Amino acid sequence: MRTKSMRVIDNNLYVGNYSLVELADKYKTPLYVYDEVGIEEKIKIFSENFKSNKFTCEIIYASKAFLAPYLCKMLDAAGFGIDAVSCGDMHLINKSGFPMNRVILHGNNKSIEELEMAIDLEIEYIVVDSFAELVKLEELAKAKKKKVNTLFRINPGIHADTHAYIETSLLSSKFGESIHDDEILNKVMNIYLNSKYLHLDGFHSHIGSQINNPKSFVAEAKTMLNFIKRFETKYNYKMNTLNLGGGFGIKYTDSDKEIDLELILNEIVKSVEEGIARHGLSINKLMIEPGRALVGDSGFTLYKCGALKTTFSGKKYLFIDGGMSDNIRPALYQAKYTVEVANRIKDELTEEEEYENLLNFYDVVGKCCESGDIIALNVKLPEVKKNDTIVVYATGAYTYSMAMNYNGLTKGAVIFVKEDKIREVIRRESLDDLINTCNFEVE
Amino acid sequence: MRTKSMRVIDNNLYVGNYSLVELADKYKTPLYVYDEVGIEEKIKIFSENFKSNKFTCEIIYASKAFLAPYLCKMLDAAGFGIDAVSCGDMHLINKSGFPMNRVILHGNNKSIEELEMAIDLEIEYIVVDSFAELVKLEELAKAKKKKVNTLFRINPGIHADTHAYIETSLLSSKFGESIHDDEILNKVMNIYLNSKYLHLDGFHSHIGSQINNPKSFVAEAKTMLNFIKRFETKYNYKMNTLNLGGGFGIKYTDSDKEIDLELILNEIVKSVEEGIARHGLSINKLMIEPGRALVGDSGFTLYKCGALKTTFSGKKYLFIDGGMSDNIRPALYQAKYTVEVANRIKDELTEEEEYENLLNFYDVVGKCCESGDIIALNVKLPEVKKNDTIVVYATGAYTYSMAMNYNGLTKGAVIFVKEDKIREVIRRESLDDLINTCNFEVE
Repeated sequence: MRTKSMRVIDNNLYVGNYSLVELADKYKTPLYVYDEVGIEEKIKIFSENFKSNKFTCEIIYASKAFLAPYLCKMLDAAGFGIDAVSCGDMHLINKSGFPMNRVILHGNNKSIEELEMAIDLEIEYIVVDSFAELVKLEELAKAKKKKVNTLFRINPGIHADTHAYIETSLLSSKFGESIHDDEILNKVMNIYLNSKYLHLDGFHSHIGSQINNPKSFVAEAKTMLNFIKRFETKYNYKMNTLNLGGGFGIKYTDSDKEIDLELILNEIVKSVEEGIARHGLSINKLMIEPGRALVGDSGFTLYKCGALKTTFSGKKYLFIDGGMSDNIRPALYQAKYTVEVANRIKDELTEEEEYENLLNFYDVVGKCCESGDIIALNVKLPEVKKNDTIVVYATGAYTYSMAMNYNGLTKGAVIFVKEDKIREVIRRESLDDLINTCNFEVE
Repeated sequence: MRTKSMRVIDNNLYVGNYSLVELADKYKTPLYVYDEVGIEEKIKIFSENFKSNKFTCEIIYASKAFLAPYLCKMLDAAGFGIDAVSCGDMHLINKSGFPMNRVILHGNNKSIEELEMAIDLEIEYIVVDSFAELVKLEELAKAKKKKVNTLFRINPGIHADTHAYIETSLLSSKFGESIHDDEILNKVMNIYLNSKYLHLDGFHSHIGSQINNPKSFVAEAKTMLNFIKRFETKYNYKMNTLNLGGGFGIKYTDSDKEIDLELILNEIVKSVEEGIARHGLSINKLMIEPGRALVGDSGFTLYKCGALKTTFSGKKYLFIDGGMSDNIRPALYQAKYTVEVANRIKDELTEEEEYENLLNFYDVVGKCCESGDIIALNVKLPEVKKNDTIVVYATGAYTYSMAMNYNGLTKGAVIFVKEDKIREVIRRESLDDLINTCNFEVE
């Protein structure tokens, strides 16, 4: 699961012009590294395969996967939009200079502050999640006397084959209003049709995360287009936009299925083109929201091996200088990762060593005071030594964005590497950052 | 599961002199609140029940549960020690003015920086976790020419009945060296006996978290004392200290067992007194490390209900303005919590309403874009309204300390309340705090 521009020189892994050991030593570990070439390639795949001559195609990056000012600049240059879910996200995106008219706001329980900030910054769309939220938004827009462009989130009730925590389209999901709920949708349309401020430009749906089967997306597209046809007829209202959400998977380990992203994107566009023609719809804009698929497998985390331990019961531990604090996904979702020793990539082994190595199955665990602090279990590795540089692949999504200061640990730096250029896009937290909000004066 | 000094006035919950609604409005939500009287009472229970006239008893607060400067001051006044697990912890504790000679350092993979900081700050003990760490520490102490006082962590191999993630004493655990591993312990003693700098003052053990059965601790004490006897005889070495770790449980919900903390503490002291007498040991100091048990059930979290939603499938959602970002325990450990509506505590209900209320089972979920963002499922509550103040009890441990900025959310404030006094011990993070480490200049 090495990234796009990795190569091996003298048993050492390199990304761009730098050995991973060099990067780990310079920026300290844990260190989040992005292979910029990998992200560029993903941007290209999305751009070239998500397009149509029947309608505009917009690619909106789901920034909860990972957000940094420099990434906003890359996305801006590519003409992508960004999906934000909070004031925090909008604040960062705005400060990075990203055009706010290409930002959309999501969330099942948006606060007044979030809605007001979105209105004030004149973002592209607020994706309204429920009837209750629409009522709240109508009040705010009226008070501000500002036009607000919206999509409305529909729960299409399609089951995607993924982890229950990230499956978002069960009939009982907290997101959106059900495609079957004529009564509530009638109330929704009543507000839109009578509002001087709120414009309904289209519908949004999202069926889950880490999906690798094009059929799931095609089923979603067909379901939404059938629904739009029925809806347009009923309300004599023309829909301009369809947003099919995200959920495009990546490969974390060898045992994950291959994902043919080009095929998935082509199938989505084709099925929407066909559906529009079949139903005679006037959809002018199709949107998708990849997050993980854009950055996930171009990111990796570097650690130093602090110590090795073989327990009395024979289990071999490789202790890294990070863990659940910088990557909670194994503990939270039982996520699996691929691990290598960056400075022992192609060691030539004697026959004896080869035999020994058969026994080198390590549990790669962190430094938090907790048994659940696991990165990967039963990983076959060459004989690891203290201070070796450990690389965990495909950690570009939902790692830094979910990082925490548990055990008083500081968040690592994030760097982007391309050829001879290293960009430190987020610096390492200092000990003083950690206590920045503490009040030391209170008696 | 209300806290010590809570009472109800006109259907509203109060802590000290303040209604929870008032606190939520003033400090914004999510808000972490500690009932200071509850913590004081727990300090008293520990002080009064963990004592002996045969040896010194030291209570060391396991600060990974929750750490703030003001809490350090309370613990200092009580004569307690603090257990740190990182430079971050030691930095905060030191800046709070806490005496560092009552601080001990834990961790399965301590870094060079952590060990050096502990040596430089002359803390009470470094609890050495493994043979490999002992070797590292010996080198550092020698380089600094500094005496270092240590305990050595033993894995006693006792199974505590708790969640696998927080069960830390399986034979295959990452913590400590096995009580059965004579070979490694021999290597350990060889270093100690030949070191000019490292002093072995005693052993440490810890059998897990959220334990409510005194028998688990008694088994641990007996096992460790038998081991010490055997060890002392073998090496002709007198042990001064026994540290039995923490793991004292609290009650989260009505279905949790009652925990008789006084009984547990008395049983521990009694069994150690008996063991010492039986074996003729010269243990002069007994230590325990409560974390959760000192602060867990005196803390609670306040949220505002942002919206309610009944899905087409009939599930009722109560959306709070926080979630897995401020309390990841339900998603991570399937932890259960007790929830109430702070401003609808004793609403008088008509018969009809009573009947209606039977249907008021809510899933209390957060605002993160993720289906796993759950606080409590199927909670029976009175009919909740938007802007109601929601209280989640027993969130004083492992919530703020595990909080994250996922979805661009900022960490809430932490306040301590006692009668008419409110202490804001940690302020709410601002949007600018959130982007503090971001580099906006990089092109």
